[in-house]
Amino acid sequence: MPELRKDPIVGRWVIIATERAKRPHDYHPEERLLGAGGVCPFCPGHEGKTPPEILAYRPSEGPGARRDAPGWSLRVFPNRYPALMIEGGLDREGEGLYDRMNGIGAHEVIVETPAHDKHLADLSENEIESVVTAYRDRVADLKRDLRFRYVMIFKNHRAAAGATVQHSHSQLIALPTVPKNVADEMQGALAYYQFKERCVFCDMVAQERRDRRRVVYENAAFLVVEPYAPKFPFETWILPRQHRAAFEDCPRPEFAALADALGVALRKLRRALDDPPYNFILHSAPFGERDSPSYHWHVEIMPTLTRVAGFEWGSGFYINPTPPEEAAAFLRELEE
Amino acid sequence: MPELRKDPIVGRWVIIATERAKRPHDYHPEERLLGAGGVCPFCPGHEGKTPPEILAYRPSEGPGARRDAPGWSLRVFPNRYPALMIEGGLDREGEGLYDRMNGIGAHEVIVETPAHDKHLADLSENEIESVVTAYRDRVADLKRDLRFRYVMIFKNHRAAAGATVQHSHSQLIALPTVPKNVADEMQGALAYYQFKERCVFCDMVAQERRDRRRVVYENAAFLVVEPYAPKFPFETWILPRQHRAAFEDCPRPEFAALADALGVALRKLRRALDDPPYNFILHSAPFGERDSPSYHWHVEIMPTLTRVAGFEWGSGFYINPTPPEEAAAFLRELEE
Repeated sequence: MPELRKDPIVGRWVIIATERAKRPHDYHPEERLLGAGGVCPFCPGHEGKTPPEILAYRPSEGPGARRDAPGWSLRVFPNRYPALMIEGGLDREGEGLYDRMNGIGAHEVIVETPAHDKHLADLSENEIESVVTAYRDRVADLKRDLRFRYVMIFKNHRAAAGATVQHSHSQLIALPTVPKNVADEMQGALAYYQFKERCVFCDMVAQERRDRRRVVYENAAFLVVEPYAPKFPFETWILPRQHRAAFEDCPRPEFAALADALGVALRKLRRALDDPPYNFILHSAPFGERDSPSYHWHVEIMPTLTRVAGFEWGSGFYINPTPPEEAAAFLRELEE
Repeated sequence: MPELRKDPIVGRWVIIATERAKRPHDYHPEERLLGAGGVCPFCPGHEGKTPPEILAYRPSEGPGARRDAPGWSLRVFPNRYPALMIEGGLDREGEGLYDRMNGIGAHEVIVETPAHDKHLADLSENEIESVVTAYRDRVADLKRDLRFRYVMIFKNHRAAAGATVQHSHSQLIALPTVPKNVADEMQGALAYYQFKERCVFCDMVAQERRDRRRVVYENAAFLVVEPYAPKFPFETWILPRQHRAAFEDCPRPEFAALADALGVALRKLRRALDDPPYNFILHSAPFGERDSPSYHWHVEIMPTLTRVAGFEWGSGFYINPTPPEEAAAFLRELEE
């Protein structure tokens, strides 16, 4: 059973893998990307190489309707090497001044397409919409488990951004505690709200739409911008134009607009930066804060172009060599 | 002039390089390490390739006593490509809901040894002591500049940890604002103090010395431990056994013990992990908080063995595959 341990100073939780612990010689500078040759465990026909599916989008009849068989357009299953375990109680306890609990959580893989060589950016608007719908379906399901307080949805594209399997996929981790970065965001947004009685994200949307210099793209429901103070060059945010704290409360008709905005952003970044490694993270309110007037769900896409070194680790300051106004002008003018 | 911009949600400052801004094609996946062949700008005899020195340890007489000439055992100069500029006013101002100021600060390079092929871990205790003394001398000098609130001292070892020059060196950046990570640490330590009326670091030192499972090494003044909730495998902290908020107030006689502890930690990590890339960061109280009863300066060494990916970026949670008890047992038993 992995363990969750809390840093006694800043309150950050870490997941300590207590089984299959890595010894010093187990660390290799470059890990090989699975499925970059040989058998891809995420491809149709290899369903037996993954744990049984939790969710799949399939035809309702015919051979393609069978569970754990080919025929799906999207497939979700537990991670074979999960960071957290789904079975058990939390058993929160102290150890002197320290705090720990069992590493309980869900860790799932969302295979976005049956096509081995397609990236998320290659998918049609309908296909991306079904990826987003799968995120929502899984969050709705996991929310019923009272042990969980947060679901983090994210994607690592290419090995340099942490992907270990080439076939295009996203991941989710359901957690028994609200992660520090999310708590920091909630708290910062609340402080702004208490001062201004307005949502800071709504204010950003309004100011960016007037200003235009950092806007990359917009449609009826979403704004794609380079944020004013980006940690990384070409960091790109997708903000819903209307206030809503939780992603899973996004009305179904807006999913097509979200798929459009995400597709445009990913295709422009791919073209601008020659298919860069990137991470994207869906930021949403913790369970139980869906009615927050101060928090506003959104997506952050971070291309992995610069290295994080001692200064950034120590300070939380980031050095960004590309002003967001220049990145936005470049992306805006670029054809997809 | 670079710009400092504040994230309006979490309050993190970023440094935006507005001159020599990088265009998309300027980003390369792997940057070459300078001085790995060809002329090393940090070697004796090449003093003309760096800005004029700010500090150097030299013989007091003879040809080696001349500024910007060979003969030094340690040399400090401004970074030729500084993240921040030393000249000018801060000009703090708003831009709608956003906040900015001029990118004022100092960015200096501390070349730790004249020997091109030696690492910090290879230096004698006396030599490491003089590196630590140089840190203290530079902080004492920069503290007199009233524009600055913090000096971050750090080291990036090897390209994978962000080093761009091979010749062994540390860096410092003096900042006009307290970095978010430091503010988080100060605040967390203060919350503990308000609850317990004790310093959380002092409590850690006491508990770790009783428990022994995470202790790697100790001498009369310092404890080398694997922390209870490490972000990274083999993350190693060096804690002064006596309470003191600011590094620069560490009494001179303890510098030899610090050099001993740092040398032991770096040599053990090098041997255990086959000369891993690492970052180390000196954590100290901001200027004006040197008398804090709740904060306690220390050094954090983080080997770069795992990749930071979407989950870590989004959550601030880290997944660590090596329990600190196992890492400590391994390092403890290892000869240096």
